[in-house]
Amino acid sequence: MKNAAYYNGKICAIEDMMVPMNDRACYYGDGVYDAAAVMNKVALGMDEHIDRFFRSAAFVRIEVPMDKQGLKAMLRDLIGRVDARDQFLYWQVTRGVGMRGHAFRFAGDRASLWAFTRPCEFEDVYENYACITVEDTRFFHCNIKTIDLLPNVLAAQKAEEAGCREAIFHRGERVTECAHSNVHILKNGVFITAPTDELILPGIARARLLRLCREELSIPVEERPFTLTEMMDADEIFTSSSSAAPLRVTMIDGKKAGGRDEETFSRLREAYQAMNRRECGLEA
Amino acid sequence: MKNAAYYNGKICAIEDMMVPMNDRACYYGDGVYDAAAVMNKVALGMDEHIDRFFRSAAFVRIEVPMDKQGLKAMLRDLIGRVDARDQFLYWQVTRGVGMRGHAFRFAGDRASLWAFTRPCEFEDVYENYACITVEDTRFFHCNIKTIDLLPNVLAAQKAEEAGCREAIFHRGERVTECAHSNVHILKNGVFITAPTDELILPGIARARLLRLCREELSIPVEERPFTLTEMMDADEIFTSSSSAAPLRVTMIDGKKAGGRDEETFSRLREAYQAMNRRECGLEA
Repeated sequence: MKNAAYYNGKICAIEDMMVPMNDRACYYGDGVYDAAAVMNKVALGMDEHIDRFFRSAAFVRIEVPMDKQGLKAMLRDLIGRVDARDQFLYWQVTRGVGMRGHAFRFAGDRASLWAFTRPCEFEDVYENYACITVEDTRFFHCNIKTIDLLPNVLAAQKAEEAGCREAIFHRGERVTECAHSNVHILKNGVFITAPTDELILPGIARARLLRLCREELSIPVEERPFTLTEMMDADEIFTSSSSAAPLRVTMIDGKKAGGRDEETFSRLREAYQAMNRRECGLEA
Repeated sequence: MKNAAYYNGKICAIEDMMVPMNDRACYYGDGVYDAAAVMNKVALGMDEHIDRFFRSAAFVRIEVPMDKQGLKAMLRDLIGRVDARDQFLYWQVTRGVGMRGHAFRFAGDRASLWAFTRPCEFEDVYENYACITVEDTRFFHCNIKTIDLLPNVLAAQKAEEAGCREAIFHRGERVTECAHSNVHILKNGVFITAPTDELILPGIARARLLRLCREELSIPVEERPFTLTEMMDADEIFTSSSSAAPLRVTMIDGKKAGGRDEETFSRLREAYQAMNRRECGLEA
């Protein structure tokens, strides 16, 4: 298949998949999701993504209608159906189907499970990217990967219209994360990243970078809030998300920034890429 | 028909309506909505609801794929199909259909228009209701009627589990609104309600109550923030929404509250009800 979608047991092409209007995704954004990069037909960090997915669902009191093993098997089956080695794999659970009403009892007895996967080319990891900053007006549940993403959509659009790759959110002076990635800085050889409170998503790529710093690269790590001023003054600024390698940012709001510690950043990026290649069997 | 749904030109029963998985409602909550009570086959405050709907859409840069007259005609047609004089009418617009991607260019050329209407009994306007308070952790776009409603869903569920009608949100000491209505107080004969900033929805019922106070009832009005303490100390506390008359609250978090100026509250409620009956032709 050129791509594949799943909804409550039904499988077909993404463009052909129809869902009930009464699914609570449609009226309430009443669901959570996760997504992973598929490289050489292997979903990278699958267990971590599945674990986070179940945590997100528990936060909003949705019971995933499949256990972790069953979900993994379903997603792997979907990947296998698509004629591409590199894919973007997405799945979500919503509270179910029922006449519109806020309380859970309107949602029916069973949550809805959705998924799709499609061929995906990854971004050029060696480019230098530009970003804009955007005041973070989102809710205080950013630690949960919900589908209430309208502020993220608007920020991503704003970035694109400015010819930039990402929008970096900040609450006042404090940098939080981006519209669809986490953001980190290097200063004097130290990796600095915001702590995983209710203002940022605990990114899987972020966690993997921290692990590499600590266990493999001996790069010191500080998990603490950092400010816009610190970011503009950092040696390197970079984003991370599961669908790309760490991406280097060298321009923010039209001003040059970062780009002063390529050596440390490159070590991190190469270690990250090598880890991915090992995981999907492209490297021993 | 027992009820009726509309999606991009198709009409059928709500339970039978299917929509594309790739509609941006499904992944992003990328849409806005409005809703109105239908009494005696007339949608109350239709023009005000339609105007707010177009304002909400403009805020998030979605172009409604129909003009106001066309939308009204479609909604009236839907109401006419359903065998009930009193209905709940709902409609929404989402950014369109396309492969998942944050920026607008993924959304296709045309926004999606959704609607449904179904028979609806209104709540007992003469009961006294109980509420809980919930810290308001929502985003800073509450003035826009978006479908990013997961925090509202969770708060409404919490209220229901506490045997209460509504959850009253507060940001710290400041009372904002409820999970699906506005909230107001009476103190020494003055109607006090939060100003329409980015923390509350500019409710149509709220605006109509203000108009009645000013133009018909000579009840003084203060549009200003009020606190939890002021609310607990108020003479009356009541909610308003388009799907019900003003509802009196006499218990909050298990403590008795309000219920001390029935005369003023009753004048307001009766004037509101009479206005609705006139609008739908049930009273001269």
